[in-house]
Amino acid sequence: MAKRLRIEKLVVIGVGLIGGSFALALKRERAVGLVVGVGRTRANLAAALDLGIIDEAAADPALAVARADLVLLAMPVGQMPAVMRRIAPHLAPETVVTDAGSTKRDVIAYARRYLRRSLARFVPAHPVAGTERSGAAAAWPGLYRGRNVVLAPLPENAPAAVRLARAAWQACGARVLTLAAREHDAIFAAVSHLPHVVAYALVNSLARRRDAPGLFGFSAGGLRDTVRIAGSSPEMWADICMANRDLVLACLARYQAELERTRALIARGEAAALRRLFERARAARERWLVPADRRG
Amino acid sequence: MAKRLRIEKLVVIGVGLIGGSFALALKRERAVGLVVGVGRTRANLAAALDLGIIDEAAADPALAVARADLVLLAMPVGQMPAVMRRIAPHLAPETVVTDAGSTKRDVIAYARRYLRRSLARFVPAHPVAGTERSGAAAAWPGLYRGRNVVLAPLPENAPAAVRLARAAWQACGARVLTLAAREHDAIFAAVSHLPHVVAYALVNSLARRRDAPGLFGFSAGGLRDTVRIAGSSPEMWADICMANRDLVLACLARYQAELERTRALIARGEAAALRRLFERARAARERWLVPADRRG
Repeated sequence: MAKRLRIEKLVVIGVGLIGGSFALALKRERAVGLVVGVGRTRANLAAALDLGIIDEAAADPALAVARADLVLLAMPVGQMPAVMRRIAPHLAPETVVTDAGSTKRDVIAYARRYLRRSLARFVPAHPVAGTERSGAAAAWPGLYRGRNVVLAPLPENAPAAVRLARAAWQACGARVLTLAAREHDAIFAAVSHLPHVVAYALVNSLARRRDAPGLFGFSAGGLRDTVRIAGSSPEMWADICMANRDLVLACLARYQAELERTRALIARGEAAALRRLFERARAARERWLVPADRRG
Repeated sequence: MAKRLRIEKLVVIGVGLIGGSFALALKRERAVGLVVGVGRTRANLAAALDLGIIDEAAADPALAVARADLVLLAMPVGQMPAVMRRIAPHLAPETVVTDAGSTKRDVIAYARRYLRRSLARFVPAHPVAGTERSGAAAAWPGLYRGRNVVLAPLPENAPAAVRLARAAWQACGARVLTLAAREHDAIFAAVSHLPHVVAYALVNSLARRRDAPGLFGFSAGGLRDTVRIAGSSPEMWADICMANRDLVLACLARYQAELERTRALIARGEAAALRRLFERARAARERWLVPADRRG
């Protein structure tokens, strides 16, 4: 950035891990003046004030967004339509809006319906970060450092709005990439949504067994890693699967076919072919890990 | 142990991570006199000698086992029949044999065929430990500390033989449990063999995509954990799937049904039911983790 980023008023709607860490990172960079937090839960907003994540708390997003330079929509995607409809009439002509949703086609569809007058300044984004923890208390300024943030700009977007959204995420330490919304949703169906479905289903298939209570204690640790993401928010992940339904189903169909191929080799006792299949998987995983590790 | 464990001569057939760590742990406890290592690969045996894992190296297991107190079979299960047949005529009446195979019914079937005269002193075992690393250079004395070792003693076993095997694994720092062979194989089909098949199939289903090379870089880390065990030895895991075929197929069938149930909810747009399914998985995982963490 030639010019130093300065956001006089930032409004974060949904002050959880994602929204709170965004505010803290921009504060750390002295890139932001006033931070207003909006949320439904009084206790969480009080915690966010106490922790210095936000400077003011508000219950009504319509009042909060007045004269904002930047608004981050960081609440669950299920609340997106209601919040957009509520804030739309109150967005100033210069206010830029961005979001943190894990799926982009659905958020864009909501924006086209509810943010029509502000569409030029709505820049869809997906920060690829998070942990199993949630709430303002989990927020920390380093969450986005070195992580990917995908922007999925609209054809209608004003270049200055995209520049501001990009600069804000970069100021958080993120690597900012650009993808078309459909490409984004297809990629994340594969690398994120499918693995979550796989992990939830694996846990459930074991949990239905009569000997389930004692099972886990026998694992050497492999199972624990494989199902770690089954600890993620059921509400959020059910929403994501629904929002990205067509592409998740396409990934699931490929995976089910692959599993059936593997099952058939085991059933027919084809040890050599099974070994080759496992070798292909190990080689692919190693090819993936090397560049990922080099990136640090 | 009332009496201090003392193994004058230990023979380790297959001086890799598992066999090498067993020898090192017993040496650290001063529970062992001479350690003879047997292997097919000269370089690996030389490394084991250099690292002080073994005191003598041998290529022929038949010569090595003479006058041994304890023999550990720690080579790939595929080599089990040949090695058992080779050593059987040379086992002294007092020599106890144990193994480190991941499946127990198949190893026991081989022992019944090839170790007939020594069956009373063959104590089947499965140390539940390991990493993606292999070979003598990966061995370390702490590998078994706090880990489970499952014994699956035979009805024919002499009590003194079971006591020696148990004492040896306990001296390595392991928690020794006893299971019937079929129960062992059913439990590990669920908590270990199935998760490996799931992880290999997930990687393969992604690797077949045209956009595969760039995919992994978009993951936030969830995928990396989920497929970590797809880095495991393809030869070993193909062997395990074949050796435990019936029980692996039974687990796979349950898992495929669970996946199909999940897919149907997504396809039909049943968000609330999907959320409940994910909630059940998260709750089961949390129930499992609490005792596992308390165990340290």
